[in-house]
Amino acid sequence: MQGLAASSKLSLTVVVVAVFLLGLAGAAHGRRKLVSSANDEPCKKMTLYYHDILYDGGNNTANATSAAATEPTALSNSTYFGMLVVFDDPMTKRKALPVGNELPTARAQGFYFYDKKGSLNSWFAFSLVFNSTAYKGTLNLMGADLMGERTRDISVVGGTGDFFMARGIATLRTDAMEGLYYFRLQMDIKLYECYV
Amino acid sequence: MQGLAASSKLSLTVVVVAVFLLGLAGAAHGRRKLVSSANDEPCKKMTLYYHDILYDGGNNTANATSAAATEPTALSNSTYFGMLVVFDDPMTKRKALPVGNELPTARAQGFYFYDKKGSLNSWFAFSLVFNSTAYKGTLNLMGADLMGERTRDISVVGGTGDFFMARGIATLRTDAMEGLYYFRLQMDIKLYECYV
Amino acid sequence: MQGLAASSKLSLTVVVVAVFLLGLAGAAHGRRKLVSSANDEPCKKMTLYYHDILYDGGNNTANATSAAATEPTALSNSTYFGMLVVFDDPMTKRKALPVGNELPTARAQGFYFYDKKGSLNSWFAFSLVFNSTAYKGTLNLMGADLMGERTRDISVVGGTGDFFMARGIATLRTDAMEGLYYFRLQMDIKLYECYV
Repeated sequence: MQGLAASSKLSLTVVVVAVFLLGLAGAAHGRRKLVSSANDEPCKKMTLYYHDILYDGGNNTANATSAAATEPTALSNSTYFGMLVVFDDPMTKRKALPVGNELPTARAQGFYFYDKKGSLNSWFAFSLVFNSTAYKGTLNLMGADLMGERTRDISVVGGTGDFFMARGIATLRTDAMEGLYYFRLQMDIKLYECYV
Repeated sequence: MQGLAASSKLSLTVVVVAVFLLGLAGAAHGRRKLVSSANDEPCKKMTLYYHDILYDGGNNTANATSAAATEPTALSNSTYFGMLVVFDDPMTKRKALPVGNELPTARAQGFYFYDKKGSLNSWFAFSLVFNSTAYKGTLNLMGADLMGERTRDISVVGGTGDFFMARGIATLRTDAMEGLYYFRLQMDIKLYECYV
Repeated sequence: MQGLAASSKLSLTVVVVAVFLLGLAGAAHGRRKLVSSANDEPCKKMTLYYHDILYDGGNNTANATSAAATEPTALSNSTYFGMLVVFDDPMTKRKALPVGNELPTARAQGFYFYDKKGSLNSWFAFSLVFNSTAYKGTLNLMGADLMGERTRDISVVGGTGDFFMARGIATLRTDAMEGLYYFRLQMDIKLYECYV
């Protein structure tokens, strides 16, 4: 009964695919690959808020953390089609921006652009850069931000440092939107392949 | 003999790496990771046509589904070096564009740019966005489009929804090219890692 | 004892996850997925040098292999924030650029942009394109180039051809920097997931 309970618990969390299965000795200093199994329970999970403060052309130079590198194209219908924004944005655990000397949990470095004629829609590729006592390393993400949907999923395609070789999904939700120049996304980051 | 036949059939298709190997119970609502094995047979395969209708500067605003966000640079030798195009392009099962109220099978949202001085060559990153009764979800792709080759492979680096955590290869073929403003690519999408 | 030694050696290199574990016959023409295990020893490793020769606006058209597609934005503080560079750069085994008819080991095709207000920092996405007797195929990479760090890791998110479905890490080091218009990066490419 105990054995059953233990294996059932295992099935609810993660399955050690590589070294564990072969039962090899001498793996003490190596990493093992974990793949999530039953119930799609992630091997790692965190929720962070992404804050984009876009340079508005004059008044917010000191606060802005992103800027448009290209103009909207002629296909834009108030939808910014073709506008590409480069960012170095703060990521926080709470919804509020860091205050005073407080450091963000991570920085999101990358770009997005608007890519639809008839509605607001964008596409992201970026790295989450962690450099704190909690985590050192990066996660690399890309995918379509289907802004018309309440939630939309993008891919975590790789990681480095504490996130060595990770893969997973980030679920995005628009949490606040103040015109073009500030928006906040809730990002639920769920890793389903981890090396630990 | 039956057992042998069954395992041989298994080896020709896919191998269940995670839950199956451990024979865990309670995995009924979880996903299992499949990795293709013998003969490199994909766990999922589809052929779609990508249509890029580039805004031509005036006459095709209504039909265009992509636009150049940057001009070619001084390194361009009629090769558009540095021109970056943002797209929201239709993907179809047949070679023809959708007609009337017909919906495309998916939309390809992302960008490409030309990146060679002496010949036509480009680089793509995009999401295939499926939203139909057949599939809901996205596939995320990136790679070099070596236009001088008859076929060229790019990477499927992740997926969401019905394509949860997928990985694979997409083989591109130029199927039609009408100057700069319309081209069609055949994309043979082959997934070799699936979660089902 | 011999068995132990053999399995210990195995644990130091790579673990065959898929076909090997099930001991299936008939896999002779298929690929097997290898996942590195103990000691994080890569299943493939190579060091290459990346040379970026940026078009300087007039004098180096013949030699330049990259060009800025966008200007730095107003957020740039001599940090080029928002400048996006498209490249088709040579990759070499030795530090020197190819001379005469010598071919580079690979070409790096993709883009980077600068993305920080207060210091030099960039973000890369590109393909390494191999087309020689040694290798045919591509590796696809993306990640933050944290230029203030002595070394920084980006992700190898996929591969094609001889690098079919590969994943790994590339460690970057600035090896030379001559102003804005030439820099050389040492790239230690380590694949931890290989199909062979």
